[in-house]
Amino acid sequence: MNTLPPSAAVLVIGNEILSGRTRDANVQFIGTALAGIGIRLREVRVVEDQRQAIIEAVNALRGRYSQVFTTGGIGPTHDDITTDCIAAAFACAVHHHPDAVQRLTAYYGPSEAIEIRLRMARVPLGATLIDNPVSAAPGFSLENVHVLPGVPRILQAMLPNLLARLPGGPPIASHTLTAWVRESDIANELAAVQTHYPGLDLGSYPFMREGRYGTALVIRGADADAVATAAGEVAAFLVGRQVEFAATGQ
Amino acid sequence: MNTLPPSAAVLVIGNEILSGRTRDANVQFIGTALAGIGIRLREVRVVEDQRQAIIEAVNALRGRYSQVFTTGGIGPTHDDITTDCIAAAFACAVHHHPDAVQRLTAYYGPSEAIEIRLRMARVPLGATLIDNPVSAAPGFSLENVHVLPGVPRILQAMLPNLLARLPGGPPIASHTLTAWVRESDIANELAAVQTHYPGLDLGSYPFMREGRYGTALVIRGADADAVATAAGEVAAFLVGRQVEFAATGQ
Repeated sequence: MNTLPPSAAVLVIGNEILSGRTRDANVQFIGTALAGIGIRLREVRVVEDQRQAIIEAVNALRGRYSQVFTTGGIGPTHDDITTDCIAAAFACAVHHHPDAVQRLTAYYGPSEAIEIRLRMARVPLGATLIDNPVSAAPGFSLENVHVLPGVPRILQAMLPNLLARLPGGPPIASHTLTAWVRESDIANELAAVQTHYPGLDLGSYPFMREGRYGTALVIRGADADAVATAAGEVAAFLVGRQVEFAATGQ
Repeated sequence: MNTLPPSAAVLVIGNEILSGRTRDANVQFIGTALAGIGIRLREVRVVEDQRQAIIEAVNALRGRYSQVFTTGGIGPTHDDITTDCIAAAFACAVHHHPDAVQRLTAYYGPSEAIEIRLRMARVPLGATLIDNPVSAAPGFSLENVHVLPGVPRILQAMLPNLLARLPGGPPIASHTLTAWVRESDIANELAAVQTHYPGLDLGSYPFMREGRYGTALVIRGADADAVATAAGEVAAFLVGRQVEFAATGQ
């Protein structure tokens, strides 16, 4: 471990996201959950269900970030190749994990498809299981790589148990001011506040609602006091400019 | 150009996606539009509004794929650094594009903020503008990198003009069979069809709806005839297994 704040990446393994068939929902869920335990999501990659692409991405990301979360590709069909790719990335073998075999056998009962279903008990040697309270088939962690399913309802049920065992930090503080002003009208004032607080992120996100232009101003950072003070400076210049706005801390 | 089918990557530049504040909508839109003109979206990266991360990702992706689309970071505020990062990635200078200056001046009219707004007329030297029919501020193309805004409504209005000038191919054909069966019960038959058609992608996506388990089986590829024939083989084994299903070609 080093002294940098904990960081994370998500690797989405999914042709269905790239083709446009499915709109990803997991990145937003994981990003929000990680911010809550003080881990900053710093990069996302989406790759095809293709062996070399997955292995390369896993190895690039696991060396660069404290934690890596993969989604998708751990079911029982031919296109579910995530487990084998993770094992290849770590150059280790795959086995049927005894606990996973037991869970799947108990969940499905006797069935002619049990051999196929037990493909979901295959994990790299040395991996730790991640409980699945919905449909039994576990995910797994190998070092700093955490392998989760793509189905959002199942991923969302599995993530809390996993996050509880990861080293985090203080939650990332965030304050949003939603102002009825075009962002170019306040760009200089906003830049000045950013200059005062180089350790914070001040984001400016324009929107149009009910025919009016507005800008969401988001201040984020690990230092909750600094976030609050910076948000106060933004509020002060909005008041000074007689801009109507609403403020919400999180 | 080579003889490989045209490929693409999307680079999302956006702290707001990584923090969980916003759920990305642009990847699905771009992926769908590209499939329609025969360009396969093969990778997506989401990076922070951070200079080195953006430059590295642009250079990694533009060397690997036929076309690269970036979203976000081209507004007038301090956190809009995409234009300068693209210029740095190509080692070229930035100028105020005369056409862009003219469009923005006409759109906004005289204003004390005009100097700030004209930041949105800055593009790398040699870049071609991408028209913005909604709010004037253009995107731009530099070689195979196409720079678009993050606001979905504006991106969606800009993309058709851009895509019309890119070399594509026949639309990627797709056929979906939505079957009321658990995927493990048909995994072997599905794998056999995939083996018959190595040039196609057969995806299996489990779901649960109204308390019933189902699987969406998606066959995709550039060869529309092969997609139809493979979908016929899948339909045949579903009929043979007395599985209820619905089929839709696209």
